[in-house]
Amino acid sequence: MANQLLKGKKGIIFGALNDQSIAWKTALKCYEEGAELILTNAPIALRMGEINALAEACGNAPVIPADVSNDDDIKKLFTEAMAHFGGPVDFVLHSVGMSLNIRKGFHYTSLNHEFQHKTLDISAMSLHRVCQVAYEMDAMAEWGSIVALTYIAAQRVFPDYNEMADAKALLESITRSFGYHYGKKKKVRINTISQSPTRTTAGSGVKGFDGFISFAEKMSPLGNASAEDCANYCVSLFSDLTRMVTMQNLFHDGGFSFTGVTQEVIEQMEK
Amino acid sequence: MANQLLKGKKGIIFGALNDQSIAWKTALKCYEEGAELILTNAPIALRMGEINALAEACGNAPVIPADVSNDDDIKKLFTEAMAHFGGPVDFVLHSVGMSLNIRKGFHYTSLNHEFQHKTLDISAMSLHRVCQVAYEMDAMAEWGSIVALTYIAAQRVFPDYNEMADAKALLESITRSFGYHYGKKKKVRINTISQSPTRTTAGSGVKGFDGFISFAEKMSPLGNASAEDCANYCVSLFSDLTRMVTMQNLFHDGGFSFTGVTQEVIEQMEK
Amino acid sequence: MANQLLKGKKGIIFGALNDQSIAWKTALKCYEEGAELILTNAPIALRMGEINALAEACGNAPVIPADVSNDDDIKKLFTEAMAHFGGPVDFVLHSVGMSLNIRKGFHYTSLNHEFQHKTLDISAMSLHRVCQVAYEMDAMAEWGSIVALTYIAAQRVFPDYNEMADAKALLESITRSFGYHYGKKKKVRINTISQSPTRTTAGSGVKGFDGFISFAEKMSPLGNASAEDCANYCVSLFSDLTRMVTMQNLFHDGGFSFTGVTQEVIEQMEK
Amino acid sequence: MANQLLKGKKGIIFGALNDQSIAWKTALKCYEEGAELILTNAPIALRMGEINALAEACGNAPVIPADVSNDDDIKKLFTEAMAHFGGPVDFVLHSVGMSLNIRKGFHYTSLNHEFQHKTLDISAMSLHRVCQVAYEMDAMAEWGSIVALTYIAAQRVFPDYNEMADAKALLESITRSFGYHYGKKKKVRINTISQSPTRTTAGSGVKGFDGFISFAEKMSPLGNASAEDCANYCVSLFSDLTRMVTMQNLFHDGGFSFTGVTQEVIEQMEK
Repeated sequence: MANQLLKGKKGIIFGALNDQSIAWKTALKCYEEGAELILTNAPIALRMGEINALAEACGNAPVIPADVSNDDDIKKLFTEAMAHFGGPVDFVLHSVGMSLNIRKGFHYTSLNHEFQHKTLDISAMSLHRVCQVAYEMDAMAEWGSIVALTYIAAQRVFPDYNEMADAKALLESITRSFGYHYGKKKKVRINTISQSPTRTTAGSGVKGFDGFISFAEKMSPLGNASAEDCANYCVSLFSDLTRMVTMQNLFHDGGFSFTGVTQEVIEQMEK
Repeated sequence: MANQLLKGKKGIIFGALNDQSIAWKTALKCYEEGAELILTNAPIALRMGEINALAEACGNAPVIPADVSNDDDIKKLFTEAMAHFGGPVDFVLHSVGMSLNIRKGFHYTSLNHEFQHKTLDISAMSLHRVCQVAYEMDAMAEWGSIVALTYIAAQRVFPDYNEMADAKALLESITRSFGYHYGKKKKVRINTISQSPTRTTAGSGVKGFDGFISFAEKMSPLGNASAEDCANYCVSLFSDLTRMVTMQNLFHDGGFSFTGVTQEVIEQMEK
Repeated sequence: MANQLLKGKKGIIFGALNDQSIAWKTALKCYEEGAELILTNAPIALRMGEINALAEACGNAPVIPADVSNDDDIKKLFTEAMAHFGGPVDFVLHSVGMSLNIRKGFHYTSLNHEFQHKTLDISAMSLHRVCQVAYEMDAMAEWGSIVALTYIAAQRVFPDYNEMADAKALLESITRSFGYHYGKKKKVRINTISQSPTRTTAGSGVKGFDGFISFAEKMSPLGNASAEDCANYCVSLFSDLTRMVTMQNLFHDGGFSFTGVTQEVIEQMEK
Repeated sequence: MANQLLKGKKGIIFGALNDQSIAWKTALKCYEEGAELILTNAPIALRMGEINALAEACGNAPVIPADVSNDDDIKKLFTEAMAHFGGPVDFVLHSVGMSLNIRKGFHYTSLNHEFQHKTLDISAMSLHRVCQVAYEMDAMAEWGSIVALTYIAAQRVFPDYNEMADAKALLESITRSFGYHYGKKKKVRINTISQSPTRTTAGSGVKGFDGFISFAEKMSPLGNASAEDCANYCVSLFSDLTRMVTMQNLFHDGGFSFTGVTQEVIEQMEK
């Protein structure tokens, strides 16, 4: 596909770490559909340098480091973006998440609460910061579209997902809350995509990920959605085809979310 | 327990077939908590005669046959109930469901649509009929409570549950719709309990029920709720402790509804 | 927009009555995006003849009458469609609904239950019939997309919407149930769009529609979604950008569904 | 009512500020139903001294100060509670919430993010802390019940509720997450009650509260649930009647949550 669906649109992509990242594939797909891009990630993530290959593949998109827990960094990002684009931003992909408690091996029933604050800050409050900076700077174009990636653990417990479940629930609430205000002010819409478990660097950090991804595959009538599928779905949400969709959490998961059980799982249970 | 929580209350129990039935256990529990009861079921179900043992155990509660797809039967039921109680009814348990397509072995993708009409009529529209008759006859006391039993297949697909899933979704919608009107008119509240799969005569009719009940057990942090647990929960919903709860679908399932996966299931998947 | 997003795709559009219809605008938009179409409606609706103007505007799309409560009609429709297209169908829009109780002026608490059966049959079971016929005839292409239109009254009570609320809840359940089976069998996905109240011929039949549409407008951060917006959203769901979305109810309503109250409504309440 | 429904049970009540508080009325009701109690609140809240009247009315219940953002305070609380009760705790009411951004008058689109951390800490992470301490100390009895109070702003936007909406979404997620683990370990169940807006000291802090409470009243078929109604509902959730209910968010709101609009609101819109 290449229908120039995003022709003339300008977007910022957060969180492309390497070519497994959903953000990476989304950037490529948006570029293919005619969008101009700016790439951003945490300074430490950029130091690895892989993103330069992506920038090149996206028509030499600028790469601007920004720590999402730092207001000044985000302001600088939007200032430079508007200067580069010569105007406001049409879309933003927020693909950011990190759990210190998971990294350090703390079980959900033994959380370090300072780490939990950090997790909430990076993984959820960061969306509020990005929206607030854009709102205050009036940096989004009318009918702009902001998408954040989330996971169904925000609705149901997947024990190994640990405190990230709570962070995603917070992220989805911020999506609704800010979506209301930004919609009223400037028709900007904000949604989350609740994506199948995906074999990215972030996903792989979760314990028992392999057993889990195979459970999800067996529980999804269409199978798990891939990172590339997700990139396509992001394109539809950045396009003008979906202008009246806002404040939603959109499951993109091959039907997992509304499947209670499948024949394959029942058979496995009988083994 | 026996706290006389329903002392002075009068109720009608639909659907007590035998001592495995949730309705049967609910009748016993309500009686134990001080309620006066009337028992009802379809004429054909009553012919088996087991219900007389229950009637006796409930202080010789009258047994009044009623076909829930027949308005006249339901009118007769409420007329006799009000005469017997000397006043209006405080609570109703609707535990009624039947799928002709399941009985006849039709897969969900090959339904007989006449049978489907019958299934919807018996399993869902019957609640509308009961409410409508009571509403028109003004047969419920103020703050009365109507509870219908449902299953989570109304929200997520459990393939073997077949067309009953759709019937339960319809039942839950009727609960909300009529709950609104009866609430406005007379403070009568209407709710559904979404119960764990339960080894009753009705439950056992579902193909693959054993594999499924064991999956549900493994997916529920507290295990499956039993028929007796459900009877207790009904008591709480008939009591004055829950007066402001209406139009709700209440999961009574040991946590199944908000559990995405458990360690046990993951382990089973890895076998 | 005209990005040839549906180039090479073949679709059937149910329910284009006149140029106010969502189905009408969706047909135009799909044609503009490169799709080939067949139009269908109930024989009685076709008799008015307006649809011929639409057929012409869509490259002389065939118009095939079909009563959605009649299996034979639906079979004939799919047989002729496959012959015309020279192969299977890629997408279907189900925009069908009718309430006899509303037409006849029966309040929700005084429904005629024969009419209610008719309402459920036309408005919800019709989707099951269409899917079942297509499934049995293997008439949908792999990764095909079926969309049905629904309304948020399936989740929350809007009293004047009457029994249609229950019909929509049933429709959404059928979407999930059949979506599971068709997804497993052939990757066909089935979703509902829950659209803002829209000034169509069907919408206008609802009592108090004007007061209501203005309430919805005030309660939606982006305002009500128009029929044309809905057509655009349908295009995105028929396209390959949304392949992994299935069994979902997708709110397309300017944010109404997740807005509890707005400043405008509060101010109106204080008058 | 006084049915000794909680006879022999021991509970801790957080958050009774004055006789308008839900926690206050819940304490009274639990005591009336036979429970033994310990009362707790933040040291600063206790300084006002009103709670002593409650303690007296509850059979001279001990009052133990505890800052919910301080692990040591919570440990001390449970240690003293177990010593006083001579064993584990059967139930806990978490009625705690505070928004610094609301107090300081910051709009949702101009939040101070340090304040936001504090809000999340006090209003949501506090539940995690309480559960974690109890879990580590094995301080809850088998089949114990923990209830936290929440508000529907966690699901839909009520603009004046500001950042508390996000805090409540986080609280409800923690309820599910910890409910899973505590259920598996010791059959302890954790639920939230989503209560009607209530004229308490906390509620009154929200801007536009009067207009809002009257909107909610008009939108609830049974009217708004009072603090006393909520106390009754808490009793049912602490009792053995509801043992298999866990990880749920339970709307206690006279039907508000599933009402899309009412005749009264439509009429008001037409003024």
